[in-house]
Amino acid sequence: MGTEFDPMRSFIYVDVIKEEYRHKLQHWLYFHHIPESISQFEPYCTKYAFYDALPVPEGGERFGTARMQITEHSWLVNIMDPALKVKTFQEYMPIEALKWQGTVPETAGDVLMSGDDARCTGGNNGCMPFVFAFCPMWWEEDVKGAGRTLTEGANYRWNFALAYPEGVSKEEGDKWLFEEVFPYFEANNCCTRILTSKVRQEINDCPMYRVVEMWFTGPTAWHHLAVETADKIKSPSWAKDGDVFPYLKSGFEIRGAFVTDYPTCDAYSQYRGYIPRR
Amino acid sequence: MGTEFDPMRSFIYVDVIKEEYRHKLQHWLYFHHIPESISQFEPYCTKYAFYDALPVPEGGERFGTARMQITEHSWLVNIMDPALKVKTFQEYMPIEALKWQGTVPETAGDVLMSGDDARCTGGNNGCMPFVFAFCPMWWEEDVKGAGRTLTEGANYRWNFALAYPEGVSKEEGDKWLFEEVFPYFEANNCCTRILTSKVRQEINDCPMYRVVEMWFTGPTAWHHLAVETADKIKSPSWAKDGDVFPYLKSGFEIRGAFVTDYPTCDAYSQYRGYIPRR
Amino acid sequence: MGTEFDPMRSFIYVDVIKEEYRHKLQHWLYFHHIPESISQFEPYCTKYAFYDALPVPEGGERFGTARMQITEHSWLVNIMDPALKVKTFQEYMPIEALKWQGTVPETAGDVLMSGDDARCTGGNNGCMPFVFAFCPMWWEEDVKGAGRTLTEGANYRWNFALAYPEGVSKEEGDKWLFEEVFPYFEANNCCTRILTSKVRQEINDCPMYRVVEMWFTGPTAWHHLAVETADKIKSPSWAKDGDVFPYLKSGFEIRGAFVTDYPTCDAYSQYRGYIPRR
Amino acid sequence: MGTEFDPMRSFIYVDVIKEEYRHKLQHWLYFHHIPESISQFEPYCTKYAFYDALPVPEGGERFGTARMQITEHSWLVNIMDPALKVKTFQEYMPIEALKWQGTVPETAGDVLMSGDDARCTGGNNGCMPFVFAFCPMWWEEDVKGAGRTLTEGANYRWNFALAYPEGVSKEEGDKWLFEEVFPYFEANNCCTRILTSKVRQEINDCPMYRVVEMWFTGPTAWHHLAVETADKIKSPSWAKDGDVFPYLKSGFEIRGAFVTDYPTCDAYSQYRGYIPRR
Amino acid sequence: MGTEFDPMRSFIYVDVIKEEYRHKLQHWLYFHHIPESISQFEPYCTKYAFYDALPVPEGGERFGTARMQITEHSWLVNIMDPALKVKTFQEYMPIEALKWQGTVPETAGDVLMSGDDARCTGGNNGCMPFVFAFCPMWWEEDVKGAGRTLTEGANYRWNFALAYPEGVSKEEGDKWLFEEVFPYFEANNCCTRILTSKVRQEINDCPMYRVVEMWFTGPTAWHHLAVETADKIKSPSWAKDGDVFPYLKSGFEIRGAFVTDYPTCDAYSQYRGYIPRR
Amino acid sequence: MGTEFDPMRSFIYVDVIKEEYRHKLQHWLYFHHIPESISQFEPYCTKYAFYDALPVPEGGERFGTARMQITEHSWLVNIMDPALKVKTFQEYMPIEALKWQGTVPETAGDVLMSGDDARCTGGNNGCMPFVFAFCPMWWEEDVKGAGRTLTEGANYRWNFALAYPEGVSKEEGDKWLFEEVFPYFEANNCCTRILTSKVRQEINDCPMYRVVEMWFTGPTAWHHLAVETADKIKSPSWAKDGDVFPYLKSGFEIRGAFVTDYPTCDAYSQYRGYIPRR
Repeated sequence: MGTEFDPMRSFIYVDVIKEEYRHKLQHWLYFHHIPESISQFEPYCTKYAFYDALPVPEGGERFGTARMQITEHSWLVNIMDPALKVKTFQEYMPIEALKWQGTVPETAGDVLMSGDDARCTGGNNGCMPFVFAFCPMWWEEDVKGAGRTLTEGANYRWNFALAYPEGVSKEEGDKWLFEEVFPYFEANNCCTRILTSKVRQEINDCPMYRVVEMWFTGPTAWHHLAVETADKIKSPSWAKDGDVFPYLKSGFEIRGAFVTDYPTCDAYSQYRGYIPRR
Repeated sequence: MGTEFDPMRSFIYVDVIKEEYRHKLQHWLYFHHIPESISQFEPYCTKYAFYDALPVPEGGERFGTARMQITEHSWLVNIMDPALKVKTFQEYMPIEALKWQGTVPETAGDVLMSGDDARCTGGNNGCMPFVFAFCPMWWEEDVKGAGRTLTEGANYRWNFALAYPEGVSKEEGDKWLFEEVFPYFEANNCCTRILTSKVRQEINDCPMYRVVEMWFTGPTAWHHLAVETADKIKSPSWAKDGDVFPYLKSGFEIRGAFVTDYPTCDAYSQYRGYIPRR
Repeated sequence: MGTEFDPMRSFIYVDVIKEEYRHKLQHWLYFHHIPESISQFEPYCTKYAFYDALPVPEGGERFGTARMQITEHSWLVNIMDPALKVKTFQEYMPIEALKWQGTVPETAGDVLMSGDDARCTGGNNGCMPFVFAFCPMWWEEDVKGAGRTLTEGANYRWNFALAYPEGVSKEEGDKWLFEEVFPYFEANNCCTRILTSKVRQEINDCPMYRVVEMWFTGPTAWHHLAVETADKIKSPSWAKDGDVFPYLKSGFEIRGAFVTDYPTCDAYSQYRGYIPRR
Repeated sequence: MGTEFDPMRSFIYVDVIKEEYRHKLQHWLYFHHIPESISQFEPYCTKYAFYDALPVPEGGERFGTARMQITEHSWLVNIMDPALKVKTFQEYMPIEALKWQGTVPETAGDVLMSGDDARCTGGNNGCMPFVFAFCPMWWEEDVKGAGRTLTEGANYRWNFALAYPEGVSKEEGDKWLFEEVFPYFEANNCCTRILTSKVRQEINDCPMYRVVEMWFTGPTAWHHLAVETADKIKSPSWAKDGDVFPYLKSGFEIRGAFVTDYPTCDAYSQYRGYIPRR
Repeated sequence: MGTEFDPMRSFIYVDVIKEEYRHKLQHWLYFHHIPESISQFEPYCTKYAFYDALPVPEGGERFGTARMQITEHSWLVNIMDPALKVKTFQEYMPIEALKWQGTVPETAGDVLMSGDDARCTGGNNGCMPFVFAFCPMWWEEDVKGAGRTLTEGANYRWNFALAYPEGVSKEEGDKWLFEEVFPYFEANNCCTRILTSKVRQEINDCPMYRVVEMWFTGPTAWHHLAVETADKIKSPSWAKDGDVFPYLKSGFEIRGAFVTDYPTCDAYSQYRGYIPRR
Repeated sequence: MGTEFDPMRSFIYVDVIKEEYRHKLQHWLYFHHIPESISQFEPYCTKYAFYDALPVPEGGERFGTARMQITEHSWLVNIMDPALKVKTFQEYMPIEALKWQGTVPETAGDVLMSGDDARCTGGNNGCMPFVFAFCPMWWEEDVKGAGRTLTEGANYRWNFALAYPEGVSKEEGDKWLFEEVFPYFEANNCCTRILTSKVRQEINDCPMYRVVEMWFTGPTAWHHLAVETADKIKSPSWAKDGDVFPYLKSGFEIRGAFVTDYPTCDAYSQYRGYIPRR
């Protein structure tokens, strides 16, 4: 009887496709979504935080860079377990909220979706998929920068999920990632930290295979390494002529965001209702 | 230039006229009204608390007893000062919220009111007036029970505002209150505390003249004193044949509620959004 | 070694048998019980909330309706596991607190009980049993109203636990409940939601077998359905002449309360000590 | 002896001149500045909040648009009163923090400044001045949109401070603002709210004369009105050939930011230390 | 009518005369006194904090060094104003709590005192007086160390109140303090900060005349300066043969404590009830 | 895949070897360590609290009495599980912080350590070992005082970890503890409570075998029992001539602290950043 203890951390990359929608999406997130989420999962989710996306650095568009925020949860259980299927309230999830995020076409008809359905939008409707990536609660691999402390200064973090193209095995993809990509970044002091975990794709059929977090001194360093001189990274077997790093389809095979160390909203300790400025 | 320091405490007696409305009124109060109120007045209101009304004790109806709650504010300024007139947001104040409270007839047409207008409803529309009584921040007179400590047990508090009938001077009314009513209650051990302050009626043309708080051991004691044996209180000069204590028109000349010592919601420290039970 | 992960939610239906005791029981709950409870179980109980009982609607007495509150916990472990037996402090549990709740006769002698003993009072002493019902952390069955969102308005919730009479099998009882009772309520729009789970009776030998939660537009709708026209529900096999719905012994075979969506006290986020109104 | 009660609200427009500095400036603000500020002024500042700047809309550069945040305080006293001169701790204010904000040239030498000195930088060093604008605690004038409620949707707010050019009297400037500029915006439904107050320039010799807040449906509406069709606004007497709206020197005579309704950080209720994402 | 705005900070030096009483006094402070105090003064006291006393350094006894804590309040009003006389609850103030603090002889009879009376104990009963020193809300004079920031390291703070002996004028005393004592400490780098304010003795007839706060690198430095080499300080006119620094009667003319920078309990933001370790 | 549910409570006994270091160690704990710890383990540690050590009672030195604090955690998982090895940030752990605590010689060279390494210092470097004792989340054995409630008064708690000398079996040691030591304390009313659990030494190779908590009325009672009359306790088999109770090597075979019931800092609910007194 019951549900297994299965601690996980999940990442959601939330885009906003036009500036016209940013304040509306923020309103939906903070007015409707945070309190409804706390209501549902507070007893089995031990951390729930938002990290506002920094402006997309030059060249960041081709990396599937989300412009709104990363949402992070720490779960004690697998929330897709059938034991959790019945929800007292359905989340208030107007389709606009998904249009604003870009996982449903702006031309779609107006329906109210369930939260679980909303988090499976995109991918096969021409839109980028909604990426809800479940990982182990702790990073699996420490590629660079173990020992870095908070006193060493503010970090410019690039957190992204990736999937290798159809037809490329995970082994082959990872071989390129670990033997070509990571060493390239490791070799440069402006990249201070690299961490990665596999996505537990079985949880929710997540299209992404791996989450990577790399820290930089700032966007200049990121641009220099990931864009300007990225042709020094050996291209993978699947690269076609004219392809450039990251050799993945933006938004479909790579999805990420740039964030700081500090959460914009740690919901349990900081949310106290939607209290606007008078 | 500016606004004077003028610390006050105010009491609002919130009724709910039918049980059909209680959960709706609670929803309006906690979903809409608390966060909007905090947004507006947090910088100059230092305490904002709700005290749920205890069930009306037997005989309590003729004392204008409110059935929802007492709302208490502590203000640093006179909020009716013209300097405070401009409000960034108007409170969301659907007329239903006033119908539920009984200061607007249930048959009234549907309009959205400003908060200040809403807090002046009743009185001349056949409904009991909305009572928003501003008092000094500290009780003015300590009639009985100075020295009582929290360790002496839970208190059953009767907090009410009163006005003497038209044509009765405040001096005459107070003479009766202080020389007949209070001594009667003082003489009984089951009444443990009596405090009173004049209402600063000039602030908002409040119809009530005085706020009184009496504590009892419980509703049995209250009923015994205020109803059963209240004919021992000498009737005032304005009493007509058949009048009984309190000799005031229920809801118009006396408005109160029974509450405990403990707030249901101390909004600044306890409100964290409208988070329902899943 | 150790204790299993076994997430559960529990419900306690707290009655107050006389209004004379309501403020005293509230004092015990908020002055003594909340801080002592947090002290004991905060590390393994992830939510602890009180929901004040709404006034008993007309006809509600025969449904074993509690008048004080529902207490809800979310547990990570089975708190009756022998590994949890040693408690650093015993809860302060004067027998009055149980007399006020009605699970011990008012004539009982004065002893201090352990919390675990207190939560087993009633049932065989002529008093209604103390109902402490452990359920799965998530509702098991969604009978009506899946998809309802918070934006659809305030809900009038009837949460109750039931046990079928001695000699009636659970299968037989449930057949009546699912095939006669639920369809009757489902057929009416004023009942907006029905959820149910079995009680994990083995945890603490709980006398109740099932918890049900039904939502209504308000007490009028509830009364219409559950009292006025309830004779339309086919009576169960065990019904005797003159029996009426719910065909269960009030307080012994059915125990519940009417509450709103919103907690009166979410103890972890809202309790900050017993701070009375000055 | 003592300090007068003099409630005020102040606005600071915080820029970040390069994306390279955004995460560093955020670190300084949240790691160092918030706790040090709370330490100093919590007893006499009743609200302290940050509102992250939305991305600068197209055309927003010429309005002196700040890119980091608006900082808002509500004060009970004039913090420039000599009675407040002695500070137990000096704020940690490395000159980089001012370079990042653009009120000190990037080439300036490295010194530690006092907070008060830091908040007077810019203006006469070639950099835009640090704008710390003290206003009455309540908006003085309600130009458009009184009655707007929170339920009408998310607002895109443009909050700016302005000063008329040297040689232009306040009366002359205000005449243009109130008779030409405001009516132009009032006439369009996409501008939903206009509020304004004079700056209490005497407090800190603030270079700005007036604060204005206008709300729009979004950046498209703002751009349409403030940029695309702004030539419909009659130019002021001081306009020179080729000048365009707002006819003020960007950053020196107009300084503002675009923000949402919701604070990024309400420091007293939401700050709990600098706790980074692991 | 009304109370003046009169912002103040007050210091109370709380001793514990035997280790046998420390846990009892802590229990009284946190179980009874904090919540009762918040209840009374939260609307007009903007900060309420406890700073645990560090162990008395060698030689500290002759400086009237308190061993329990410093209590600090920030007030918006003069709490001794007659308008504040009526208190809804009297504080729970058993005479033991004063015996533990040493302002009432251990042999005194058992009575319950009012809080105001309790805070006037000592002085004329052979015990050290209860020192409740009201100062301006901001330090008046900055004698040494302006510009020190929090980043320069932890501070060992000596906060004390003093009064000059009977017959010594304040001018004469201050002349010695400012011209002999302070320069002596200023001359040594291990004393990093000196601040002082006059006590507003008229508020409550406080026996102390001035509060001084000096910061040191640690107790070794303090002992070196205040004890070992303190004979380098020129003795004051009132010194008698054999007198040593501070030339004041311990506990009667000087009362202080050693504390760190960080509060043990900032009551408004940190107190959440008396929740013991299980 | 994944980590087992394995709830535990751990105790750390933090010493400060000189008063010169107390304020520095407090600064490190509250400025650096608490926020870094919350950052790392909040999702899987459900309680994190500090209990300041009371002054060492007379005779307490020979019991390995720590002078700073006890740190208590409640964990949902075994934090030494390899799945938790990768840490995003390394804790800021200057070697001074360990010198201050006495687990590294003051003469040691200056290095930055990882947190895990720091928590293994001492023992074989001539210093007392860093004791980080993992126990079951609930006390295993209730030796004396079951039924004690919080209302019975403040408790003077002695919490210590012990290990029997090399060559003494756990059975032999426990036989002495349970048959000689505990009965001796049980026989005296001034010892009110005895609880004990075995340490889960396998978690981190903890040198200690058992944690014991005994409560007393105060230090006088403790001294009387544990020092003055402790020769009434039969000495164990391993005692040598001249040995006295506890017959264990101070700091190496016994390590403890005296604390009250109340936490100095319950980090999750009370920490809000390092906000010093101005």
